[in-house]
Amino acid sequence: MGFVEGLKCRECGREYKVDPIYVCEFCFGPLEAVYDYKKIKKSLNRKKILQREKNLWRYKELLPIDGEPQVGLNSGFTPLVETKNLARELGVKTLYVKDDTVVHPTLSFKDRVVAVALTKAKEFGFDTVACASTGNLAHSVSAHGAKAGLKRFIFIPATLEASKITAALIYEPNLIAVDGNYDDVNRLCSEIANKYKWAFVNINIRPFYAEGSKTLGFEIVEQLGWNAPDNVVVPCASGSLLTKVWKSFKEFHEIGVIKKLETKVFAAQAQGCNPIAAALKSHTDVIRPMKPNTIAKSLAIGNPADGYYAVKVVQETGGCGEEVTDQEIIDGIKLLARTEGIFAETAGGVTVAVTKKLIENGCIGKNDTTVICVTGNGLKTQEALNGQMLKAHYIPPNMESFEEVLSNIK
Amino acid sequence: MGFVEGLKCRECGREYKVDPIYVCEFCFGPLEAVYDYKKIKKSLNRKKILQREKNLWRYKELLPIDGEPQVGLNSGFTPLVETKNLARELGVKTLYVKDDTVVHPTLSFKDRVVAVALTKAKEFGFDTVACASTGNLAHSVSAHGAKAGLKRFIFIPATLEASKITAALIYEPNLIAVDGNYDDVNRLCSEIANKYKWAFVNINIRPFYAEGSKTLGFEIVEQLGWNAPDNVVVPCASGSLLTKVWKSFKEFHEIGVIKKLETKVFAAQAQGCNPIAAALKSHTDVIRPMKPNTIAKSLAIGNPADGYYAVKVVQETGGCGEEVTDQEIIDGIKLLARTEGIFAETAGGVTVAVTKKLIENGCIGKNDTTVICVTGNGLKTQEALNGQMLKAHYIPPNMESFEEVLSNIK
Ligand SMILES: Cc1ncc(COP(=O)(O)O)c(C=O)c1O
Ligand SMILES: Cc1ncc(COP(=O)(O)O)c(C=O)c1O
Ligand SMILES: [Zn+2]
Ligand SMILES: [Zn+2]
Repeated sequence: MGFVEGLKCRECGREYKVDPIYVCEFCFGPLEAVYDYKKIKKSLNRKKILQREKNLWRYKELLPIDGEPQVGLNSGFTPLVETKNLARELGVKTLYVKDDTVVHPTLSFKDRVVAVALTKAKEFGFDTVACASTGNLAHSVSAHGAKAGLKRFIFIPATLEASKITAALIYEPNLIAVDGNYDDVNRLCSEIANKYKWAFVNINIRPFYAEGSKTLGFEIVEQLGWNAPDNVVVPCASGSLLTKVWKSFKEFHEIGVIKKLETKVFAAQAQGCNPIAAALKSHTDVIRPMKPNTIAKSLAIGNPADGYYAVKVVQETGGCGEEVTDQEIIDGIKLLARTEGIFAETAGGVTVAVTKKLIENGCIGKNDTTVICVTGNGLKTQEALNGQMLKAHYIPPNMESFEEVLSNIK
Repeated sequence: MGFVEGLKCRECGREYKVDPIYVCEFCFGPLEAVYDYKKIKKSLNRKKILQREKNLWRYKELLPIDGEPQVGLNSGFTPLVETKNLARELGVKTLYVKDDTVVHPTLSFKDRVVAVALTKAKEFGFDTVACASTGNLAHSVSAHGAKAGLKRFIFIPATLEASKITAALIYEPNLIAVDGNYDDVNRLCSEIANKYKWAFVNINIRPFYAEGSKTLGFEIVEQLGWNAPDNVVVPCASGSLLTKVWKSFKEFHEIGVIKKLETKVFAAQAQGCNPIAAALKSHTDVIRPMKPNTIAKSLAIGNPADGYYAVKVVQETGGCGEEVTDQEIIDGIKLLARTEGIFAETAGGVTVAVTKKLIENGCIGKNDTTVICVTGNGLKTQEALNGQMLKAHYIPPNMESFEEVLSNIK
């Protein structure tokens, strides 16, 4: 029923049938879903998309499922907010925020990938799902898995933000907090995935899971009136989202939904975890793994699985990589809140602060159309703001006390 | 340009022109917006609504603005989630959650009222907005006011949840934390509103502000295929939301959008702040003010401005009031998360737990269609869950440690 012909090794090109597998047996390259675009071109067009419900499944022909969507039926189609105040402060004409701080139900773009991964896991017949997470994925798999009636094993670094731990636990999954960083968690999970017959969404289901990120890009194009932007700034952890946003633009181009494609893709990282940005700055495609140390914990992957491919996309499109300090991340969160009324998590602070830098250093032109991807909600990373905000004025409940405060404000 | 003819006293019927006023000069009754429904009936119908953007402004003829919407252009039209697991656990056939945990941008239904209030404040020419808040309103006015470029004075009880204080502060309003409960805050704000020429959204702008809540009801009807449900369970603080949900159904009936209207409206409160539920249980319409003491801080209004009218609606429609303990509220939050993957704040725990009670005591029938209003996100009231959740399993990053945990789980 679907439009996926099979899986294919990104390195040697060897083909596999659709299965819960993710590496090439011959060269250990990552596998990717291959679609029949000719057939899709005949089935999918602007008009058909416009007639459908406003959720991520309106692009289902370009997602790797065979039957009907089963998970995340209310996820996706978040606002593309045209900024006025922020654009003015940064000195550019046309600046949008793709606002995934309000994705249903768990307030980050991970609901997109999880919707696809769990639908696929159900098609494969799994009864247990699992993930290795930097926080948002834990939240999302816990929630969607609960509604879908799946057993859930969720692995996180023990040092995650308290809010993200609460956000996962409330759905009562089996939450395993590992003493180590994400890369340690991921290593352990790969071992577990080899042994247990579980759907590890970002390991053995990864070729399907990752495709869900394309919906962020499809929506951007649709919301820009079927145009790809001049620039898109994407936060990177494993690098997967960035590669898939680009893939979504290329696919829409391929099937004729858009005519022109000249977008530059920019990679945004924290200075404390910058393997992709650093490679780009040194004009190499060799990723040097590192030990993360940043408040942007959701982006803290020191050894990014798709880092190489992310670098290639950025280079191919003429974009670049940029990184920001923890203080710049906090200032980015505050800038976005103060100007646009959007409260982003640390990863959003990264993209906003990186965009500011890219405008300042001329990589993003003043007359370009630019989209900043803001991928998670600020309520999830509140502790990063401790001691970093304005203070409330504490008063007893009477007029004189208030007027004393007021006289100091005006 | 709009369809509002003026304001009218709910008690003596005296009429006023559209102005930032809220009480009758003669009898001190509250003022309410009066529409020309005959004219609206000619301008608004299902087809017209369906052609518009999916946000709360698609019902703009039934909102009290004169020009074009200016605030909250992405707010509203949240999912109406058909529950399967929750319905099964509670033993009913058809149970929906109106899911305002994901309203853009501040994750509670208050974005609805604030969108309308700030648009109106701009029409009136105010440059400063203010509010007395139990938390969510503070968050929403701070955010929308920032984007709209308005000066903001936000008043809250100093004992609010830390998350709600952060959620307001990040947008850099003037935040005044008053040593007292909401009723103290409200009293102080009424005094301030008399003296300063500010748009206090829930005081002098209240007749306009409150109308925004109707959009929750309009959406429910539209999402049920243009049907009002048999039952709707609404959380009550001031009681305004409840009266406006009912008003929305009546208006859709009045202008012919729905043919049948037999909905019962149920009021949900916490035992620690139950003035409306208590009045209903004693079959009186006299509200006895009380000192709130509950974890459902967003509902902690001991002297509810619209309590009398809320009681009247519940009695008129054949519903009833119900209250739940703090422990039941927490269990309600957990039940909704575990079954439907939706993480609600304490107010949502109240409606879920109250619905459970209403089903158990037969007030809600097993074959009815019921909608539970879940009006705010759980990330805002995390501290209510301290010590109340399952624990994570903490392990070093190796297989043996994981398998030890696993052997205890299975
Ligand atoms: C909020 C947020 N943004 C962006 C990313 C980056 O995702 P990717 O691993 O696809 O690069 C993540 C990853 O967890 C995330 O949580
Ligand atoms: C989450 C939530 N639900 C419901 C209410 C009740 O609103 P009302 O004052 O209109 O009764 C409030 C009020 O603040 C709220 O914050
Ligand atoms: Zn290969
Ligand atoms: Zn009167």
